[in-house]
Amino acid sequence: MTSRPDPVAPADAAARALARELIDAARFAALSVIDPNDGLPGISRIAFGRTAGGGFLTLISALAPHFAALQAQPGCALMLGEVGEKGDPLTHPRLMIKARAQFVAGDDPARPALRAHWLDHHPKARLYVDFADFAFVRLIPVSALLNGGFARAFRLEPSDMG
Amino acid sequence: MTSRPDPVAPADAAARALARELIDAARFAALSVIDPNDGLPGISRIAFGRTAGGGFLTLISALAPHFAALQAQPGCALMLGEVGEKGDPLTHPRLMIKARAQFVAGDDPARPALRAHWLDHHPKARLYVDFADFAFVRLIPVSALLNGGFARAFRLEPSDMG
Repeated sequence: MTSRPDPVAPADAAARALARELIDAARFAALSVIDPNDGLPGISRIAFGRTAGGGFLTLISALAPHFAALQAQPGCALMLGEVGEKGDPLTHPRLMIKARAQFVAGDDPARPALRAHWLDHHPKARLYVDFADFAFVRLIPVSALLNGGFARAFRLEPSDMG
Repeated sequence: MTSRPDPVAPADAAARALARELIDAARFAALSVIDPNDGLPGISRIAFGRTAGGGFLTLISALAPHFAALQAQPGCALMLGEVGEKGDPLTHPRLMIKARAQFVAGDDPARPALRAHWLDHHPKARLYVDFADFAFVRLIPVSALLNGGFARAFRLEPSDMG
């Protein structure tokens, strides 16, 4: 099909800096899951934020299809990075993170701190954060691919995104 | 967990109109696939366009991980609809489409017309459309979920998106 070399390079300092910039700017993400009803891929938009320690976090409702999907199969993938106004959309950088979802129980002793930190960065979530069907879910990164535009792809480890 | 009724309604005229608006505006999409290397979800950004007949189409490179993923498992999901500047990102409408990928061979008699129509709407793709590692892929819709903001979700059939 092609004789070009592997187009994905190991992360360098510029790639790590760009990844952190995308993570810091993200307030939402695209989430890829496996739909437990048919075993096929599903996709959703989720809120995205951090823990005080820098971990990745979301707040989701049991009414959304990705809630049951993540309970059945915690392996998932996130995409961060928006497309700007100008140029080919595929030249705008995005970070694709493979992650494992870990639900935070309503009585988890860590929840109050996660909740307070979340509301500092997502103040509108105050309207629904305490609804019984909402849960915080940690998204533990496993690996990532940064695409900085055509022919600018980098493989990242969790430590590159810290 | 909750005693609320099913939050997803059948499509009505307003939902169909909003879905078509999102489809007409989309020049790219988030794509959810199953990664053939580990069986877990993968995610990418892809170009998005239409055929002259209104079908969904993308143009992808064999160097991108979703190419091999779609060849191994054509079942996939797309998300269309961008987040605007204001308000909670989760109140901005998005359309999540379950689809089946169908690769268009380089010698497919339909390819020249697909290519010409694509370049009318994605003129910058002229730079790479004829590279040997690029292929057009039809994305045949199976079903869709339109989320028009909190508590405004609709189930759509392929005929609702025509």
